[in-house]
Amino acid sequence: MTGTIDLNADCGESFGRWTLGDDAALLQSVTSANIACGAHAGDPEVMRATARLCVTHGVAIGAHPGYPDLAGFGRRILPMTPAEVFNTVLAQIGALAALVKVEGGTLAHVKPHGALYNHAARTPDIARAIADAVAAFDARLILFGLAGSGLIEAGRAAGLRVAAEAFADRAYEADGRLRERALPGAVLTDDARALDQALRLARHGEVLCHDGTRLPLRADTVCVHGDTAGAAARARTLREGLQAAGLRVAAPGQDRDRGHSRRLLGAC
Amino acid sequence: MTGTIDLNADCGESFGRWTLGDDAALLQSVTSANIACGAHAGDPEVMRATARLCVTHGVAIGAHPGYPDLAGFGRRILPMTPAEVFNTVLAQIGALAALVKVEGGTLAHVKPHGALYNHAARTPDIARAIADAVAAFDARLILFGLAGSGLIEAGRAAGLRVAAEAFADRAYEADGRLRERALPGAVLTDDARALDQALRLARHGEVLCHDGTRLPLRADTVCVHGDTAGAAARARTLREGLQAAGLRVAAPGQDRDRGHSRRLLGAC
Amino acid sequence: MTGTIDLNADCGESFGRWTLGDDAALLQSVTSANIACGAHAGDPEVMRATARLCVTHGVAIGAHPGYPDLAGFGRRILPMTPAEVFNTVLAQIGALAALVKVEGGTLAHVKPHGALYNHAARTPDIARAIADAVAAFDARLILFGLAGSGLIEAGRAAGLRVAAEAFADRAYEADGRLRERALPGAVLTDDARALDQALRLARHGEVLCHDGTRLPLRADTVCVHGDTAGAAARARTLREGLQAAGLRVAAPGQDRDRGHSRRLLGAC
Amino acid sequence: MTGTIDLNADCGESFGRWTLGDDAALLQSVTSANIACGAHAGDPEVMRATARLCVTHGVAIGAHPGYPDLAGFGRRILPMTPAEVFNTVLAQIGALAALVKVEGGTLAHVKPHGALYNHAARTPDIARAIADAVAAFDARLILFGLAGSGLIEAGRAAGLRVAAEAFADRAYEADGRLRERALPGAVLTDDARALDQALRLARHGEVLCHDGTRLPLRADTVCVHGDTAGAAARARTLREGLQAAGLRVAAPGQDRDRGHSRRLLGAC
Repeated sequence: MTGTIDLNADCGESFGRWTLGDDAALLQSVTSANIACGAHAGDPEVMRATARLCVTHGVAIGAHPGYPDLAGFGRRILPMTPAEVFNTVLAQIGALAALVKVEGGTLAHVKPHGALYNHAARTPDIARAIADAVAAFDARLILFGLAGSGLIEAGRAAGLRVAAEAFADRAYEADGRLRERALPGAVLTDDARALDQALRLARHGEVLCHDGTRLPLRADTVCVHGDTAGAAARARTLREGLQAAGLRVAAPGQDRDRGHSRRLLGAC
Repeated sequence: MTGTIDLNADCGESFGRWTLGDDAALLQSVTSANIACGAHAGDPEVMRATARLCVTHGVAIGAHPGYPDLAGFGRRILPMTPAEVFNTVLAQIGALAALVKVEGGTLAHVKPHGALYNHAARTPDIARAIADAVAAFDARLILFGLAGSGLIEAGRAAGLRVAAEAFADRAYEADGRLRERALPGAVLTDDARALDQALRLARHGEVLCHDGTRLPLRADTVCVHGDTAGAAARARTLREGLQAAGLRVAAPGQDRDRGHSRRLLGAC
Repeated sequence: MTGTIDLNADCGESFGRWTLGDDAALLQSVTSANIACGAHAGDPEVMRATARLCVTHGVAIGAHPGYPDLAGFGRRILPMTPAEVFNTVLAQIGALAALVKVEGGTLAHVKPHGALYNHAARTPDIARAIADAVAAFDARLILFGLAGSGLIEAGRAAGLRVAAEAFADRAYEADGRLRERALPGAVLTDDARALDQALRLARHGEVLCHDGTRLPLRADTVCVHGDTAGAAARARTLREGLQAAGLRVAAPGQDRDRGHSRRLLGAC
Repeated sequence: MTGTIDLNADCGESFGRWTLGDDAALLQSVTSANIACGAHAGDPEVMRATARLCVTHGVAIGAHPGYPDLAGFGRRILPMTPAEVFNTVLAQIGALAALVKVEGGTLAHVKPHGALYNHAARTPDIARAIADAVAAFDARLILFGLAGSGLIEAGRAAGLRVAAEAFADRAYEADGRLRERALPGAVLTDDARALDQALRLARHGEVLCHDGTRLPLRADTVCVHGDTAGAAARARTLREGLQAAGLRVAAPGQDRDRGHSRRLLGAC
């Protein structure tokens, strides 16, 4: 292990009058932010304001494209062809990138949202459509995907650097899948346990599964859910706990001297 | 006069199941296309397919941002602040540019649509918001605006190259405004008369107004409306008639050797 | 057979600037119109104008609810729960009914649109959700569904009168399913053959399948597709041809003295 | 004065994943609820769930139609013609009424939302469009409008019963207008002062203006804003304070024996 881990959070998921999450607080603790692109959530004002917060706090900026489905918040799989997924992902990245640039930032990564993320993890042609869209926009972008999933594979096949994502606050089954939310113990509601899981991922490249098994799981980035009560506090606990344990918390692809070109780095 | 004139048309204004205009035919005759960006019309599939047609036919590609208002087709002035106009225009250009790039094209210009175009022509802070968004995205883009309007001024003030637009098929009043559509003779339905007006604009920098007055009107580009019956035929008549008269019909900012860098040119 | 058949068409599927079909012509020949309700197509102006045309021409008015999906025109199955389908169908019928009433009309039936129609035909809980929504709104409404499908069954189970629908312009396979559109001969492009199929349905309660088999198929209403070239002419051919053959062409549930209360009729 | 006053609140303004306000708490204290109809906020699930809460708590149910503008939350005046306002209001009422009915409730009133409410207050043809739409849907509905405004006049002219609305938590100027929000003292943040204003309205038909003037103001219903922190607590304070002072808090048009037909009452 490198001794480095990224903390990422989904941000910019407000829309018009409706606010979701406390981005201003959350962005003080995470190192990567995935900003909704106006399709499942977000509007140009929200996108730009979130980009500004990221620039202020030195958080790496990612696009968070989702199914174009405000009513379903991108949590429903829309029956779109791979070509349609490619096109919407490309358009969403393009829109966000333009607003990020005007705030003095640069896109560093892309992480699909919700149903698109999950569907891509297990559907090769959807994963490829996303990876190809990312590569078409800018081959230097890093693709975030579920650790061990087909999205990570598709990213590599498209020549992209990838970041494998794991979860600090979700229990894993012994086969490596996330424990179903409906089952008891699926969500680690205790901050100390979430920190313990993040530490184990960062230090040892493993998780302690729900049944006690130790499962190897290589993760480059750990997701902090932002839309739950106490999300900002948890993010701070994770950030501080990881650093106190001697780990470096940083966005993937960034060398130690922040701001130095991530382009010098090789592919993951 | 330079002896050069551009013919532009609004394109890509279909949406999902609904088709508007015959872009495939129209794009065989015009030299600049303004592609809707998904806000007042267009969707990622339409945007990309229209970009492909432009690349195929060697037509210069422009973004055609409008008020985000599918139900109103961008023909209603939405009460948006200049900052909101800036943000939506930037996001729309960004989305289109990403889809254009994947088709092997490059954005050459921006022409606002409908109510946004008209509102900008006479509202300085809206014109500035648009011009600033264009400049923020890429200062090499050319801004299309109504000849003599505040949008052209705003473009120049933002350091952009501009293209003044006139109309071949609309009658002008002696004060330089377009004759109201409701009045008799407002629309030149005869192709020969439209060609005559285009020729006069291109050769002499003037229009023959509805009352017979000759009005100086410097235009870099002439708009061909694409959503009327016979639009493609009219575009062909104009293209062939202008060329037969010895004029060069070409997108603004392009030198004679098509494909050579438009970046070598100075500002208009 | 009763010697009576209904001709129905989907109408009101324009949206804002975009026009689809020639409703004014089509509504001169059909006896039932299914008006889009603003979810997959239609807007309040279109809904009302279409209702007015129906009232003018004495065409029975139906609601044509679809998946709330303008971008997909209701042709994609959205992953909605039965409860969500119930709610959107109910809201759509309610919106249309209010606009119909102000034009002096009354809702007579409901026919689901596109993917919702097809999904309901083979998915019992979706069919039940639709039938229950119709019954909840007004138990006197007639539910249109694919002849022999689960939607017809669900309508009966909900205590509704139902109208079994068949197609004049689509070939049938020997097992009763519509021949896939991609296969040769799937669409009967010849008006005379479409009329022949409609006559056979109305007179003999059967279709001549693609392979020559005669298949019993009881239909109360025959659909005329309105969004194809020549749709209005075909509708006229069918109407006149059926009447010339001595058949009565009328909306289901209407007795011979038009305008008399359909409430006097028993359930189908 | 009658000794009776209504407390109303805007409800059902969540949308999909986004929650606004705490309707479950608020609806325990108010006597009338204005439910968003899916155009500026609300979706079929939210509309139905809010109707259910109203039925549970015995709260009178109203439609809360707004400009069809999710992105602007109905707070922007859309340039719609009176005919378009009529049509959208009618469609919105129709959609909500269908969902209310299935929960065992009945629509009692209509209160326009946000920009539509304000625009109608001072624009006679918009006020008339709204009043006519309400009357076209059901002439027994009560129209809520700003006390003393053109909307109240339009309601009366359309033959509707009307309820004049005042605000407990907003300061009034001596000319009867609400004090601009940007000015100091515009919002009464103290619950005791809000109660005092409500009591004065209910008992004496007057308000104590910001400059100390006493202004006659006849109000049938007092609005409690639901989307601010402490809204539910304030609503409870108002309800209990008004009742403790011997006033009857009830929806307009309801006689003392709850559930008795409001149809027996004459017009206001």
